[in-house]
Amino acid sequence: DGDPANGKKLAQGSMCARCHGVDGNARSTSLHVVPLLAGQPAAYLIQEMKNYAEGTRVDSSKNGQMAKELRLLGEAEYADIAAYYESQKRY
Amino acid sequence: DGDPANGKKLAQGSMCARCHGVDGNARSTSLHVVPLLAGQPAAYLIQEMKNYAEGTRVDSSKNGQMAKELRLLGEAEYADIAAYYESQKRY
Repeated sequence: DGDPANGKKLAQGSMCARCHGVDGNARSTSLHVVPLLAGQPAAYLIQEMKNYAEGTRVDSSKNGQMAKELRLLGEAEYADIAAYYESQKRY
Repeated sequence: DGDPANGKKLAQGSMCARCHGVDGNARSTSLHVVPLLAGQPAAYLIQEMKNYAEGTRVDSSKNGQMAKELRLLGEAEYADIAAYYESQKRY
């Protein structure tokens, strides 16, 4: 399993928190559509981070920033980030 | 905007509810990983249903059932299903 503490550092240090919010409950606006990540199953989040990095899921973030960012990280970091967002309360 | 009442009928009538739960809060198991849909922004849900139907997002559901199902529906139904799941309480 991933380490949520390291996941929090990674999420804040990289772009995740900027769009999804520090706790994964950032709301969308008409200009900026983002899914809520808080409480999502880690296995799902890992699967989708891989899909973005591998290009099997189209990256609709601005300038494809998310896929670029994710390609700089590896599976261990995905597991940590996923464990962190899974652990966040949904509201 | 979509019609949540019709969206509920569509979600229950088709496969959505079977994997994601009637209210979009179905939990994953080790054999069955599904994202929580309740409360997700409708714009995001519509975008992803289109991606699945168009194949720009890999469909990791059993036998690609989700993409097949979505290709039978159109954008008006996506908007209704999305409005329904967006309106569901997250827990």
